[in-house]
Amino acid sequence: VSKSRHLHEPLKTTQQTQLPIGVFDSGVGGLTVLRALRSQLPDEKFIYLGDTARLPYGTKSASSVERYSVQAARFLVSRGIKCLVVACNTASAVALSALRAAFDPLPVIGVVEPGAAAACAASRTGHIAVLATEGTVRGGAYQRAIARLRSEAVVYAQPCSLFVALAEEGWNEGAIAETIARRYLQEILNDGRIDTLLLGCTHFPVLTPAIARVVGSEMGIVDSAVTTAAVLAEELRRHGLQATGEAAPAPRLMATDSPERFARVGSRFLGETFAAAQVELVDLGTP
Amino acid sequence: VSKSRHLHEPLKTTQQTQLPIGVFDSGVGGLTVLRALRSQLPDEKFIYLGDTARLPYGTKSASSVERYSVQAARFLVSRGIKCLVVACNTASAVALSALRAAFDPLPVIGVVEPGAAAACAASRTGHIAVLATEGTVRGGAYQRAIARLRSEAVVYAQPCSLFVALAEEGWNEGAIAETIARRYLQEILNDGRIDTLLLGCTHFPVLTPAIARVVGSEMGIVDSAVTTAAVLAEELRRHGLQATGEAAPAPRLMATDSPERFARVGSRFLGETFAAAQVELVDLGTP
Repeated sequence: VSKSRHLHEPLKTTQQTQLPIGVFDSGVGGLTVLRALRSQLPDEKFIYLGDTARLPYGTKSASSVERYSVQAARFLVSRGIKCLVVACNTASAVALSALRAAFDPLPVIGVVEPGAAAACAASRTGHIAVLATEGTVRGGAYQRAIARLRSEAVVYAQPCSLFVALAEEGWNEGAIAETIARRYLQEILNDGRIDTLLLGCTHFPVLTPAIARVVGSEMGIVDSAVTTAAVLAEELRRHGLQATGEAAPAPRLMATDSPERFARVGSRFLGETFAAAQVELVDLGTP
Repeated sequence: VSKSRHLHEPLKTTQQTQLPIGVFDSGVGGLTVLRALRSQLPDEKFIYLGDTARLPYGTKSASSVERYSVQAARFLVSRGIKCLVVACNTASAVALSALRAAFDPLPVIGVVEPGAAAACAASRTGHIAVLATEGTVRGGAYQRAIARLRSEAVVYAQPCSLFVALAEEGWNEGAIAETIARRYLQEILNDGRIDTLLLGCTHFPVLTPAIARVVGSEMGIVDSAVTTAAVLAEELRRHGLQATGEAAPAPRLMATDSPERFARVGSRFLGETFAAAQVELVDLGTP
């Protein structure tokens, strides 16, 4: 950044606009969100942190998830970011207000509110099923967010723990994925009024084709990543933080453990192949 | 310990024999080992620590697993134990020598060597399949242990990541468990020479009936927990550390996160129901 830029008022802003957007998740799942963000905001730089040393967050207590989230966010903030996207449903559900308080005035965006908004907009019957991890379902954040946006909505929440393992194993499609999906979704299908499935876990978008085969084409399937990208775009506009000009480089990828596994499993989630050598192993400063 | 006590050699021993045996795992899986230990050593007291805040170890790097294991062991040692059982395959595979060095002369027993010994003894053909998590398979500890014990053995190692999620979901039996088992075991069945399956993950014993239906009655299924109990009994004898007299109380259970989930999922692994209130939430002293 040249010195002359500092003379104009937009100057500090200009520096800021060129900063990357920080994205974090407990592991590789948030790469489905990063994929949607990049696709909708091609001019933006991204820096992604997967806290693979402590995954999964979905089975941890709220206080642990909050502590881990603040540590991960602090790390990204220390690298310089203009906005934080919490690309993890569990962390979005329990740690968002702690993150906003800790890093104010940094804009912090979670995936729960955008996902809930998308589901509320998509459903005609107002009967919505949230598919998520056990922790997210039990925490009730999606149920509360939907109730706030559409008070007459009826929400059915279904924990789908095996979907995470299926997605990580790469068994996204085929008989096993469909059999498991059928077992989890049978009650939802039996209900007869539910017309919208909200994928409340960032791992689940890679299972969309298998889920769609089980529920049929009449059922809407909402992925919060797409709406999160729209919310992020609006937030950047509102703060005058949109990147300008330069073509964005490839996202910078970091993990707290096992870059090799992060690359191997994560490539499927990001939708493009990257190597372990492109993943920086980082330490959040606590053992 | 008062000074005079040190003058009598047997006194210290008598105190020591009444100490509990420490057992640790990354989560609930090691409760299958605890179950076997209690069944074979009914006079012994046990104290169990599940490091649920940092599970699973199976996808973590060796250096992280070693650090976590030493922290968990230090915690148990601080509570007073006479022997340590590492009821976690991943930790047994990568952390055993670090633990022995750190806590010498405390006897430290892992599950890998006993499991490998049982499989070598059970197999007639010398063709053995190890079923384990991705991390355990990649680490190669079972392959090395079997090669040491029976150099002509041919070892086939199969990662079965979904078995962990299946066991935790409680879908131990039925069509889904068998379909997944068939997919993982197809190559082993096709091989035609393998006559012994070694369950190299403490989660897998609850899946034994489903695995047995897939592989048929000719295939031996070896669970390291049973052999580990025999090794522990021998180790206690060798050190003169067997408990005497008193009926042992119920094991003391501790977890580093979510006692509620530990109790709900763990009861299936221990083979008896216990409540969250019986699980002490502990902090290993590091955030």
